[in-house]
Amino acid sequence: RGLVHVKNPHLDSMEEDVLYHLALGTKTHNLPAMFGDIKFVCVGGSPDRMRAFAQLMQKELGLAGDGQELADICAGTDRYAMYRTGPVLSISHGMGIPSISIMLHELIKLLHHARCRDVTIIRMGTSGGLGVEAGSVVITDVAVDSSFRPRFEQVVLDDVVVRSTELDKDLAEELLTCSKQIADFPTLMGHTMCTYDFYEGQGRLDGALCSFSSEKKLQYLRRAYEAGVRNIEMESTAFAALCGLCGLRGESPSMATS
Amino acid sequence: RGLVHVKNPHLDSMEEDVLYHLALGTKTHNLPAMFGDIKFVCVGGSPDRMRAFAQLMQKELGLAGDGQELADICAGTDRYAMYRTGPVLSISHGMGIPSISIMLHELIKLLHHARCRDVTIIRMGTSGGLGVEAGSVVITDVAVDSSFRPRFEQVVLDDVVVRSTELDKDLAEELLTCSKQIADFPTLMGHTMCTYDFYEGQGRLDGALCSFSSEKKLQYLRRAYEAGVRNIEMESTAFAALCGLCGLRGESPSMATS
Repeated sequence: RGLVHVKNPHLDSMEEDVLYHLALGTKTHNLPAMFGDIKFVCVGGSPDRMRAFAQLMQKELGLAGDGQELADICAGTDRYAMYRTGPVLSISHGMGIPSISIMLHELIKLLHHARCRDVTIIRMGTSGGLGVEAGSVVITDVAVDSSFRPRFEQVVLDDVVVRSTELDKDLAEELLTCSKQIADFPTLMGHTMCTYDFYEGQGRLDGALCSFSSEKKLQYLRRAYEAGVRNIEMESTAFAALCGLCGLRGESPSMATS
Repeated sequence: RGLVHVKNPHLDSMEEDVLYHLALGTKTHNLPAMFGDIKFVCVGGSPDRMRAFAQLMQKELGLAGDGQELADICAGTDRYAMYRTGPVLSISHGMGIPSISIMLHELIKLLHHARCRDVTIIRMGTSGGLGVEAGSVVITDVAVDSSFRPRFEQVVLDDVVVRSTELDKDLAEELLTCSKQIADFPTLMGHTMCTYDFYEGQGRLDGALCSFSSEKKLQYLRRAYEAGVRNIEMESTAFAALCGLCGLRGESPSMATS
């Protein structure tokens, strides 16, 4: 393991790399000095929650300060928010695959430019649980699409490229072991289904549009459960595919609501 | 024209409708009193920009106040931001189809519960221009997918449903006429291509991953231009499909960067 890989031969010949949606860049910022010692990146949808997480980390790591002084490193944009405490970076990614993909492309280039080594990335989200107790944390062994296949279809220009959505098995086991050391912390490993839509895509009966019956919804969710799905969210396949391709050790545990 | 349609038979039998991602609901808020007289909804990706737009509207409409006092109606959540000035609602939607879809489902239900009539919705975005002068505004006649087809594929449970992406022709013509009354305001009508990915999906050479040559990128963009595409962004097909189905008069003009 080691460096973060970018897989883009064009980057070497660029004089400047502007990480536009993070409001950072190779000419405007000294990325190795700012980020070279980062070892953990934690990401989640909500900017407020990622700020609260950075404050919690500050306390847990025994670092000076109460966290109130933590400044948004991406203050130049309101697309994403980013905080750092010690070796931990905490970043928001918004909702859905397109939104997390933009952030991950720019984060991966950031870690590459900063010459970071041995980085672990953890997506901490909320999700809809499937046959699991509300409040449980589902550690994802593999992310699957809405047909329960362990794959991410990426449109590259107008070709469809299929990518693997396996996550780091050792990291998943490590997190499961940690969870067992905490009392009353229901945790399990399972497949996580990733959809493009929250309402019609996840079988909700309360969107502005709904063309299926309650029975058809239950049939679908039952088939998902039988295929090994234990929770449903909106980012995991893209997260798994990008981490896998770029050599980032990644895992995507999320809290399941009912 | 008239009321906003929801197409969901389950809604009538629900005792309460919680618009979760807007932090609003039918039991906690008097939606008809708060929103019943809304006639225009303007949406865009960035929360800061939608606040600035609401302030501009306040001034343009000659309403009292300097706009500094405008409060975020969705203050209970950081998923989206919402401001109102007179009959105009200004809401952020984040980046990408999944993010705008969640907002639109809940907005459409909000307008329905509030019994709004004759609502016009305008998405004001930025986009990559295709063979147009930088700074031009492209008014979308139809939104197309990455294969230049005027359609939006929505996954409903695990079926794929194809939806129309036509926008309101009269509204488009009206906006074009308005633009001609302003000096130095280059505006044109054309197709808008909507992609799920900003880097690999739009032919960018500066993502963390890039597997195509500069030549292949240019070939793709040339084909898009020949198919009538004048700009590229990440929300228009879902926006057009949802507005069309729910009886919202919608248009999606966006500023094209180079």
